[in-house]
Amino acid sequence: MLPKSLTEAIEALGKLPGVGPRTAERYAYYLFRSNPEICNEISNALLNLHSGVKTCPKTFALINGTDEVSSLYTDPARDKQTILVVEEPLDIYAIEQTNEFHGTYHVLGGAISPIDGITPDQLHIKELILRIKNDNAKEIIIATNPSVEGESTALLLQKTLIEKYPELKVTRLARGLPLGVDLSYADQITLSAALENRTSI
Amino acid sequence: MLPKSLTEAIEALGKLPGVGPRTAERYAYYLFRSNPEICNEISNALLNLHSGVKTCPKTFALINGTDEVSSLYTDPARDKQTILVVEEPLDIYAIEQTNEFHGTYHVLGGAISPIDGITPDQLHIKELILRIKNDNAKEIIIATNPSVEGESTALLLQKTLIEKYPELKVTRLARGLPLGVDLSYADQITLSAALENRTSI
Repeated sequence: MLPKSLTEAIEALGKLPGVGPRTAERYAYYLFRSNPEICNEISNALLNLHSGVKTCPKTFALINGTDEVSSLYTDPARDKQTILVVEEPLDIYAIEQTNEFHGTYHVLGGAISPIDGITPDQLHIKELILRIKNDNAKEIIIATNPSVEGESTALLLQKTLIEKYPELKVTRLARGLPLGVDLSYADQITLSAALENRTSI
Repeated sequence: MLPKSLTEAIEALGKLPGVGPRTAERYAYYLFRSNPEICNEISNALLNLHSGVKTCPKTFALINGTDEVSSLYTDPARDKQTILVVEEPLDIYAIEQTNEFHGTYHVLGGAISPIDGITPDQLHIKELILRIKNDNAKEIIIATNPSVEGESTALLLQKTLIEKYPELKVTRLARGLPLGVDLSYADQITLSAALENRTSI
């Protein structure tokens, strides 16, 4: 009963993650009422997405389709002996925005999760082990998410790396209070960590 | 630092209503990780959206780009003397799903809202007045939203129509308890209406 093109747009937009039929309806109707330019822009961007983006074979970061290796790796100003390990490519973006890190990155491609069927050998751990040797890495900073999956992955990674390279320094991002969150809202584990790792002022 | 095509997809998807940078990032990354077929599908659907959908010049419902007038209006099985008035085209879809209404529709194109600068003469009220005369309508069912704007629009519409056509029957959708909502969560106005318009069982 709805126009065919509108139904098709609603169905297509409903494939975005977490978008149900009502939200898809709202998106489609909004786009129909807006300048057709917005439809064209989204349309073109999505058509170029797969050809324009690929995974770096060295760091597994996302890179331009025309690049060979991530520029964050090839940049001679960056310290190849310090490798920061993240779960997903977009995590690199978050760290880069701090402007505090000048080493290189390694993307695991997820975290161990028995429920989702993600086992350690599906993560890029072998490639990390090889890189540590080839680049003569001195420090590995584990920056997995502070979730159950991220924690298990961090523990396994630390164990595996130390076994292989007993000399290697393996560190993790600090735990503590995030900015702007009330003390009374912080969970017990975070507060314990904040107390334990207190710094002098 | 992110691949150009990914940044472009994030920016484009960020133009959807209520989608901020984080959500746009999630959408774009999800699409990149999924089958390219999904990108193609969304892309094609959006390219066809504006050419494939237009507004019915009679009822202001959304119709296929190739149609002249809404099939909900031209269908001889539908009663042209009963017109249900809604704010937006998608409201028709909600009413149609009840399978209870066999009259015709008229879309106002919004509701009076001084804050958003929507005045009565921007709504399709003139066209409704003309239709009532041409189709010799007997009943107008006002089905605006139960919001402040919808209520004001309903009141103005009722006043205007009765002035023009004193014989016309003007009705409104009933107020009462919706299915599945606990009595204690219902607001005062809804409860008052439910009590006042109680039905015998």
